[in-house]
Formats: sequence, structure tokens, C-alpha cells
Amino acid sequence: MRVDGGKWYRTIWPKEDDPETNVIQIIDQRRLPHEFVIESLYTSDDVATAIKDMHVRGAGLIGAAGAYGMYLAAMEAQKSDDIDFNRYVKESAEKLKATRPTAVNLAWAVDRMYSEIHQGDGWKEKRRVAYIAANQIADEDSNCCERIGHHGMKIIEDISKKKNGETVNIGTHCNAGWLAFVDYGSALSPIYVAHDKGIKVNVYVDETAPRRQGSNLTAWELGQFGVPHKVISDNTAGLLMKKNKIDMFIVGTDRTTYTGDVANKIGTYLKALAAKDNNVPFYVALPSSTFDWNIRNGMDIPIEERGSDEVHYATGMCDDGVVRRVRLTPKGSEAVNYGFDITPAKYITGLITERGICPATEKGILDMYPEHRTSRPTLERYG
Amino acid sequence: MRVDGGKWYRTIWPKEDDPETNVIQIIDQRRLPHEFVIESLYTSDDVATAIKDMHVRGAGLIGAAGAYGMYLAAMEAQKSDDIDFNRYVKESAEKLKATRPTAVNLAWAVDRMYSEIHQGDGWKEKRRVAYIAANQIADEDSNCCERIGHHGMKIIEDISKKKNGETVNIGTHCNAGWLAFVDYGSALSPIYVAHDKGIKVNVYVDETAPRRQGSNLTAWELGQFGVPHKVISDNTAGLLMKKNKIDMFIVGTDRTTYTGDVANKIGTYLKALAAKDNNVPFYVALPSSTFDWNIRNGMDIPIEERGSDEVHYATGMCDDGVVRRVRLTPKGSEAVNYGFDITPAKYITGLITERGICPATEKGILDMYPEHRTSRPTLERYG
Repeated sequence: MRVDGGKWYRTIWPKEDDPETNVIQIIDQRRLPHEFVIESLYTSDDVATAIKDMHVRGAGLIGAAGAYGMYLAAMEAQKSDDIDFNRYVKESAEKLKATRPTAVNLAWAVDRMYSEIHQGDGWKEKRRVAYIAANQIADEDSNCCERIGHHGMKIIEDISKKKNGETVNIGTHCNAGWLAFVDYGSALSPIYVAHDKGIKVNVYVDETAPRRQGSNLTAWELGQFGVPHKVISDNTAGLLMKKNKIDMFIVGTDRTTYTGDVANKIGTYLKALAAKDNNVPFYVALPSSTFDWNIRNGMDIPIEERGSDEVHYATGMCDDGVVRRVRLTPKGSEAVNYGFDITPAKYITGLITERGICPATEKGILDMYPEHRTSRPTLERYG
Repeated sequence: MRVDGGKWYRTIWPKEDDPETNVIQIIDQRRLPHEFVIESLYTSDDVATAIKDMHVRGAGLIGAAGAYGMYLAAMEAQKSDDIDFNRYVKESAEKLKATRPTAVNLAWAVDRMYSEIHQGDGWKEKRRVAYIAANQIADEDSNCCERIGHHGMKIIEDISKKKNGETVNIGTHCNAGWLAFVDYGSALSPIYVAHDKGIKVNVYVDETAPRRQGSNLTAWELGQFGVPHKVISDNTAGLLMKKNKIDMFIVGTDRTTYTGDVANKIGTYLKALAAKDNNVPFYVALPSSTFDWNIRNGMDIPIEERGSDEVHYATGMCDDGVVRRVRLTPKGSEAVNYGFDITPAKYITGLITERGICPATEKGILDMYPEHRTSRPTLERYG
């Protein structure tokens, strides 16, 4: 995406287009919206820290980061000994996958890198393969998101036509935009395509506490793109839907079961309930790398519990221009911080994927992805 | 309530127990939880500002503040001329009622003061009557809340018994505690009574953005009372209910129709939907001054829209001990800020009032308050 009307950025890229570059660059998302800072990652440990501490976040982007982390692992692995090389790469894969448990793209990308790397013959070839494979994962993510945009745009266009061209009001939660993927985004991609096509849109952006990816990231990238938007507290979307001020909702997902249950940023479930209660269409946008073909019941998805300081403190820019954190809670109060919740499939109008839009049902998903019919666990396995 | 284990405070009181005191004192709730500051109000304008800018807030407390504001208005009105006196008191009543539109207690208390003041014969007697009436409104509020506590405690006690004395986990939103009333509170009063009785409780406190009355006020007063509690982001209660980690929910209300629809702090509706979806009992606690006997449909309750800066900024204590505000949103992003939402009666398990617990239905409410059977608008009026 274009930043400040200038250079086109992805969210992650090799510093030089060279298998020997050894340096991966990212946008440090902890600094947005107040500062735009590019960070260089030199080792697979740097990548693990960047994922864990959320310099990068978002389903697709942590997948791509995991892939580039595996490339760096291949670069730093002992080259003298094949056994040592393989052991190091395997340990690096485990380290990277352990950084965040909920999003499936990360494990998917790291596992794919692990198996691709082993296609290479000898350490030199393995490194070259790692570089190519990581770039390919990033390219695929970007391409999928672009296609999601075109499929999802049609939903917005239909509503626009029904409203005789009046502004289509779209609710979203967290950040499933350009910043959550390598480019374009999942939930925001259809909005960008619609906006580019001249369809009038307005986005209600949930703040998304405790880390405020909505006010920090989604509002920022919509602003960069020139899309009209209004930030609201996480408590507000229910009333707006009751007042007919939201025409549709689109969110992303960190993992979606092959039965259509959606793990996404904590609070998504509450918005889906309100959408159902007010007959507002509620869509989830995702590339197929976000499907979990092994889990039947969404409540079996591991939910990341993060540190309580994210609830105790908010970070932002003070009136003197200095970025500081402020304590919101009294000393002595405890806090609990779950990263994600589960929205049952029955509350979801449809899934917007790179292949098109399908119902959030086992049949709908497997009709769209027939190659996974056989790979999924049978009902019997789950009793 | 006892503060720092010392003096017992109400949230509002005349500086001296004397009809000529002319000074009303409050706890400036904008400074909590980081500082405990008592503020003196000298004029009805001071009171109007204190309500509008939320030095005081909460259904019962702004009612009592409105009452004391009317007392100050009577003290500052021209005494030479009965017509001028009455006009001034009437204008003051309008000014005070206009400060916050949603909570009905404010209008109720101001109107009651207006009519009581006119029982007095001459300005001297009118002032004496105003002082007595304002104190009486404050006393009634306190007494009602104490009784709500005893009625509501039984619900907690029942759950505790069913759990064989294990901790009862209670969710709450915003602050409907001691700080929202003159004393004791509505939603938190049953929790205090249960805690005093030795019943094990834990409270999940919604942060309640944008003003964060949960993390700033509810967490603080629960801490003062020694009640175990955990602050959560407003997005979290849905997941906790899905995981069976919340046994019941209790909230307050700023206005409740005689049919049981509840206006309360924005976000209440979302929690009620999740409670329904997970069969978690959802109670609303209120003194009868919070009923609106004239409105049939909750969606007809006026919803206050507040300034967008409440969404753009968060205020708290920096690591250097200075209280500052930080900007959470990018420059150039707009924000929208509604203060309340409407929870339909069908999502409410019961209303806890000073007379006991009743269903959130027209019949349930009017059986509890038969004296209002005739005063309410007929169905015909609403078509």
C-alpha cells in the first residue's frame, strides 16, 4: 500500500532481492499511528520476538514473518553438518510456531517452509529454496488478499445499489487490513476495491481494546487510503446496528474451522451476536491458509492469554508529542487478557475467500475446497 | 462507604448540616482512581458543570446532585420578589435537567424539588424546604440502594449454594456502585452485602470505554471494599461466558421503561446478548426513581451523544506519576461517541428493586409498583 502518498510498501520484505540478503524488513506496528518506523530483522530470534511482541501481527503477516524467519534460520544454521543443519531448522520451526498459538497461518507457513527446505539438496541449495519459498508464501498471501477484495466488493456494490448509491456503512473489528497481511488485507480489501471503484463507503472502526488495533492501525490505514471512517468504542456497534446505521460487518479471522467457526480478535463474537439480532449481514474474509482442516469445533481452538499489562495500560501520544503509556486501572487491581474469541458459524452470513464467497458451513467450505474433503477428521473421530 | 479504611463517605453532602451552608461537596470522580479529591460546589452553575463534565455521574448520584443544585438555586435566587424567585428556580431546573438527557433520575429529582420548593411560603421557607427535600432525596437514594443490596444478595447466595460455596463469578459493566449513587450502589450493592456475609465472590469488571468507569471507578471501589475482582476489556465477557467463567451478570440502568427495556451505559446490550446466548442470568438493579412511567419502547429513550475526544484520548497515570491524556487515534480520524444503549426487556432475567425482584415485563413491574398502573400511557397512545 502507498504510504503518505509516496512509496508502495508491503508489510514485510527482504532488504535486498538476493538469496544472500540475510536481512528482513518490517514496519514496526507498535509505533503506529504516531510514527512510521521500518525495523530490520537479522536472525530467526529477531523474527520470533517481532511476532511475540507484536511488531508484526495479523493472520497473514505472521504467516509470512514465520516463513522469512525460517529463511533466516536456514541462513544461520551450521552448514558443515547436515544433521546439525536439520536439527537447527527443526528447532527454529518449533520456536517460531510457539510465539502465538491461535492463528493457524503461522504454523501452516512454518510447516510448509520446513518441508520445502528439505527438498533442497545440501545446505546451499536448502538456503536458496528457503528464500524462494518464503517469497512465494508472501506473494500468495498478497494475491489471495487481492482476490478477496474483488469477491467481497460485489457484496458492497449490491448494498450500494439497493441504497441507490447512498453511503454503505460497514463495521469492522480489529485490523484485518493491509497491515495484517503482506498487502491489501482480508476484511478491508473489499472496502479498498469498492472505494477505488467510486462506491461511497464509510467504515465504523471498533477501537479493539486492549491493544487498540482498530484505532491505531485500521484508522491509520483507512486514512492513508482516503476511506471515510469513524472510530467507535468497542461498546458502540450494537447501538449503531439497532439504529440501522450499519449496513454490513466484515472482519478477518486468525483460524476458521472447516465447519465455519471463527476464531478472531476478542470481541468479534459480541458484534456477531448484535448483527444477528438486527439482521445485519456479518461476513468473515480469509485466505484459505487460515482454514484449520483438522478442528471441527471452534471451542477446541487454543485461545492465547496475554499479559495483563495490556489491560492495565494504554499507549498513545501525549499533548507534548511524546508517546507514553498511562495506567488505566487502580494499583492492586488484577486484569485478565484473552486475545481471541470464538464466533459460532451460525452467526456468520458468509466467508469471503480467494475462490469466492461460501456459506460458513462444512458443506459450503468443502464445496469450495474439495481437495480437503479427504484430509479432514471424520465425525467419528470427534464422537 | 469507607475510604482507605478511614472515614465513611457519601458521594455528595452539604458541607455543614445547616440549611444556610450554601456549599455542597462531592468526590471529583474524574480524578479517580489515581487521586481522591473533594470538590466544593457553590452555585447551581457549579452543579450543572459538575454533572455535565462528569465530576459526578451515575443515575442516582446525578439525581441527588440535581436536587442539591436546586437547593443552591433557591439560595441564589432573588429574595425580594416572589415572581423573580420562581422564575429563577424554574430556569435553574431547566438548566440542570439539560445537562444529561438519558438518566431519568435527574429530571425526576429536579422536578420533585421544583414542586416541593413551591410548597414553601415565601423565600425563607422555600429555602428551608429545599434543603430538607434535597437531603431527603439523597437519604431515599441511599436507603433504596441498601435494600437493593439485600434483595440481590439472595440471588448470589443461591448460586453460591448451588456451587457448594465455590466462588461466584459476577460480570458487571460501567459503574453502578457506591460512586454512582449517594451510597451502596445498585448493581454492586448485592455484591457488597454478599461479600460482607462471607459469600465468596469474584467480579469481572468491564473496562467500559470510552470513559472507563469500570477500570477507573468500579475497580477502585471494589478494591476499597476488599472484593476480589479482575478488570477485562469490553470485548472479553462473551468469551468468558462461553467458557462458563461467569455465573451471573448485574448492571445498573439510567432509565428503564415500565415495560422493562433498559437504557444503560453503551455496551450493556452486547453483554446481555452474550448472556442470553450462554444461559447466564442477566440482572438489572435499580431504585424505582429510575423507572420511566411514560415511555413504552426503550428505543424512544433519548441517547446522549458526547464529544469525540472521549474516544480519541485516554487519561491515566504515566510511569513518572503524572496524570496525562494520550491520543489513541491518528490525527485526521473522526470518532463517534454515544453514551448509552438499549437492552430489550427480553434479554433481562429480572429487575432488582428496593421492593424486591420482578420480571422485566410490564406486568412484573406494575405488579411491584401498582400505584403506577393508572399513570402510564395506554397502549393506544403508542398505536
